[in-house]
Amino acid sequence: MWQQQELKLAPRSRGFHLITDEIVDALPGLSHCAVGLLHLQLLHTSASLTLNENADPDVRHDLDAFLRERIPGDLPYFRHTLEGPDDMPAHVCASLLGTQLSLAVRKGRLALGTWQGIWLGEHREHGGSRRLLMTLNGDG
Amino acid sequence: MWQQQELKLAPRSRGFHLITDEIVDALPGLSHCAVGLLHLQLLHTSASLTLNENADPDVRHDLDAFLRERIPGDLPYFRHTLEGPDDMPAHVCASLLGTQLSLAVRKGRLALGTWQGIWLGEHREHGGSRRLLMTLNGDG
Amino acid sequence: MWQQQELKLAPRSRGFHLITDEIVDALPGLSHCAVGLLHLQLLHTSASLTLNENADPDVRHDLDAFLRERIPGDLPYFRHTLEGPDDMPAHVCASLLGTQLSLAVRKGRLALGTWQGIWLGEHREHGGSRRLLMTLNGDG
Repeated sequence: MWQQQELKLAPRSRGFHLITDEIVDALPGLSHCAVGLLHLQLLHTSASLTLNENADPDVRHDLDAFLRERIPGDLPYFRHTLEGPDDMPAHVCASLLGTQLSLAVRKGRLALGTWQGIWLGEHREHGGSRRLLMTLNGDG
Repeated sequence: MWQQQELKLAPRSRGFHLITDEIVDALPGLSHCAVGLLHLQLLHTSASLTLNENADPDVRHDLDAFLRERIPGDLPYFRHTLEGPDDMPAHVCASLLGTQLSLAVRKGRLALGTWQGIWLGEHREHGGSRRLLMTLNGDG
Repeated sequence: MWQQQELKLAPRSRGFHLITDEIVDALPGLSHCAVGLLHLQLLHTSASLTLNENADPDVRHDLDAFLRERIPGDLPYFRHTLEGPDDMPAHVCASLLGTQLSLAVRKGRLALGTWQGIWLGEHREHGGSRRLLMTLNGDG
């Protein structure tokens, strides 16, 4: 069984956002999948996808604060600066965190750990809406 | 062909640990798979999975030393600090290194390069045992 | 449908290189795949694969410059130094960026975003040619 669909994520502020529920709600086929994999791919180069803590929002704050401090926009050797000081750091974050994830499906649900959630990393100040391509493959 | 099973990894000290053999030994179905993919997902947010050098243990030491130095636990803007100074750095490592991997299977074996091995990154001082979900999909 | 083949990438200079076209040209089966996933795995531990900007080459320059500055080879705690000052930083980059990618396939093409391309990260000064294993799985 293959299913593929695109999800349009509403614009979000710079930082990390929990999007597990939004993804699951957009996947009615998931409940019919006994075992499989869900592949997620952001179609952008200045945002990211990662698995991390689904409870305390401070974890999302802290990772964003760490990346902002450690990947500033005004490094003297940066050349790709025309689109603003948040642009090149966003490209760095996209590659360090990644823009695609594969997640196990078990008994009709994402097989996430108790504390795992799917995070969207919005690394631009005004990134706008983001396109997420979801590809589900599994046994019915 | 789909196979899915959970592997319980024994508690390990903070740092990187080679777990290729433990994974292969737990997958009898692998030898019947002519071509496919093995998906590995840690069900945790303070440990990681990565592919790296399977020979010299100094590489595992050096990556851990680098991460400890560059991601300290006492950064002034960290808020998620109640669980100790190793907790927030562990969340950062989980997202930078990742908690899931997809590996090619060829002729009944993991198609790793000569020097590639699967590393578990244990980023807590006392992380305890870790759950690894393994999903194998392929042609017999 | 499963297809698996190895692509030998010609030696490249240290830095990031756009290899989307080289991959697509080596995959005649791609055009027959209505929906699926392409898995890419470098069989090395000192190079990387990542998705990022396919247009302005300055983005490739800047990410490489950032990694060179932030991951130097002469850190006092590095032990794996016999193969030269570019070796341990290359191992760090391989784990931070990753050596495997899964990419969505849609209507016979890689479903990349407008600005997304596949980058090879060559993190050694003289890495030589690199082996890339490609595994395509999908519906015809």
